[in-house]
Amino acid sequence: MIIDVHGHYTTAPAELRAWRQRQIAAIGSPFNEPLTISDDQLRQTLEAGQIKLQRDRGTDVTLFSPTAGGMEHHVGTFETSLQWSRTVNDLIYRVCTLYPENFIPVCQLPQSPGVDPATCIEELERCVNQLGFVGCNLNPDPSDGYWTDPPMTNRYWYPLYEKLVELDVPAMIHVSGSCNPNFHGTGAHYINGDTTFFMQLILADLLKDFPALKFIIPHGGGAVPYHWGRYRGIAQDAGRPAPEELMRNVWFDTCVYHQKGVETLVEVMGPDNVIFASEMIGAVRGVDARTGRYFDDTKPYVDALNLSEADRGTIFEGNAFKAYPRLAKKLARQ
Amino acid sequence: MIIDVHGHYTTAPAELRAWRQRQIAAIGSPFNEPLTISDDQLRQTLEAGQIKLQRDRGTDVTLFSPTAGGMEHHVGTFETSLQWSRTVNDLIYRVCTLYPENFIPVCQLPQSPGVDPATCIEELERCVNQLGFVGCNLNPDPSDGYWTDPPMTNRYWYPLYEKLVELDVPAMIHVSGSCNPNFHGTGAHYINGDTTFFMQLILADLLKDFPALKFIIPHGGGAVPYHWGRYRGIAQDAGRPAPEELMRNVWFDTCVYHQKGVETLVEVMGPDNVIFASEMIGAVRGVDARTGRYFDDTKPYVDALNLSEADRGTIFEGNAFKAYPRLAKKLARQ
Repeated sequence: MIIDVHGHYTTAPAELRAWRQRQIAAIGSPFNEPLTISDDQLRQTLEAGQIKLQRDRGTDVTLFSPTAGGMEHHVGTFETSLQWSRTVNDLIYRVCTLYPENFIPVCQLPQSPGVDPATCIEELERCVNQLGFVGCNLNPDPSDGYWTDPPMTNRYWYPLYEKLVELDVPAMIHVSGSCNPNFHGTGAHYINGDTTFFMQLILADLLKDFPALKFIIPHGGGAVPYHWGRYRGIAQDAGRPAPEELMRNVWFDTCVYHQKGVETLVEVMGPDNVIFASEMIGAVRGVDARTGRYFDDTKPYVDALNLSEADRGTIFEGNAFKAYPRLAKKLARQ
Repeated sequence: MIIDVHGHYTTAPAELRAWRQRQIAAIGSPFNEPLTISDDQLRQTLEAGQIKLQRDRGTDVTLFSPTAGGMEHHVGTFETSLQWSRTVNDLIYRVCTLYPENFIPVCQLPQSPGVDPATCIEELERCVNQLGFVGCNLNPDPSDGYWTDPPMTNRYWYPLYEKLVELDVPAMIHVSGSCNPNFHGTGAHYINGDTTFFMQLILADLLKDFPALKFIIPHGGGAVPYHWGRYRGIAQDAGRPAPEELMRNVWFDTCVYHQKGVETLVEVMGPDNVIFASEMIGAVRGVDARTGRYFDDTKPYVDALNLSEADRGTIFEGNAFKAYPRLAKKLARQ
């Protein structure tokens, strides 16, 4: 089975964006309008989009979450973020109920800059316990480009980590868009967020404090595999454990859009720490004229590596079951 | 000849740091104390440090600049930054005068957050025209971790670029330390700065407006070569020129501290865009127990690549002469 752990509902019907715009326009006054999108509309966007690509590319199931760039945790108050998160999580739930063989739900959290992350627990529990979600996306910068909250290794975040461990779901560390004109969203803020988080892990005892906590770092772990010597050296100079030790709890996904990059990822980190993903339909939507394939069609890059069948299975399937413990039951139930 | 384009005077005598602390303590009141360090003190730190490593590693000459982490452009006012920059640039000039065969001077600019970059021109001209400096370090985030100034492609920076072109000196885009607890300096802020700047270039016409402007992006170009497919795809989706076109004016240095990383850098970018550097003595100071060599001894990584002698010469020497047009005359004069 080929499991893509990183897909976003970026193709949602325009009604979703329109609803969101009305919600934002109403900030400060009551807004209770329900989101109205029919099942047929959902089917249309998915069958022309993600399901078609699954079929074309030969992947079986996608762990599916709301658009990362649309989380926009900086907008409004915690209540704004909560209402938005519930709305998009419910939409993801509907998608996964319509196509249980294609999509497994992963939720957005109602984060808000400066607001205690414990406030996210109620929505996390609702998604996992009531709606069968298997993971969440956790934004390391709820300010969306200004990094004003404490580092992810700060005890500020610990109540949320306790709940993740209790529920046995991992977090994909995933920024949202960038309000900072210095940082392009998918080209800078995304990659910087991944790199920044891994460097935070190196310097802190977070994974010692939570040995069962699991993280997926998307986009190939940001810059980390390419600079693995730097991270090993910085850890050593700082008297910290070797970064390899972090990799008991951490996986880097394969959202790296060229052959040499994926080769570097797998060779440096090893198959046990690489988890298959495409981010589709997401950051890069075009077809590479050089290969005639979509940039984000990541399966051929992995296929082209000189790997044993066992290692290939670890990347395409095995690591997903390890990183997302609830996934096995979820797939068996269908 | 093997030219290392990226070395910092991180081993300066303790008197420098002490002077700087007194300068900072005096912010708001007059401070006119001269820096007092003897030539013998300079010789001691260099012969035990950078010159010893040059000899041990078989490199010939280092383009030498003040400690990047110490630029601290966020501290005080423009006047604070100017006084500090003059002081450390003068120190670099002394080093390069004492050891003209070992070190070629590169300057720090008196940047200050929110202050017109044109204010840096006078110190740049002094360094280049009076003291024979061949390049400068340009901080893309003078706030040191909060990215509050305009992107580097904004016209805000254009007067400085005009002067760089007029003087025929390149800028190495190099952040300073990070005041933001989210960003470790050398492990996150450095790499993020490199990645961020390249993504800014993709979206803007800066190099069309300044076809003679030259940039060195250190630390292997941040995450860029590893994510080259992402950058190609984002440029294509945005209707921008292919990122290869930027590489007429841009070089990535070899400050990538493991074999696979350097291999990826050279294979993806090609020898014409890779410029030899070690960052010594800098971000990572330890010896890698696996290789028995310093992490930042980057020459063996390049030596181990399957390259023609011509390509090796391009990386070790040729690109330095292209990126730093004043270097040839400077070396010939000695």
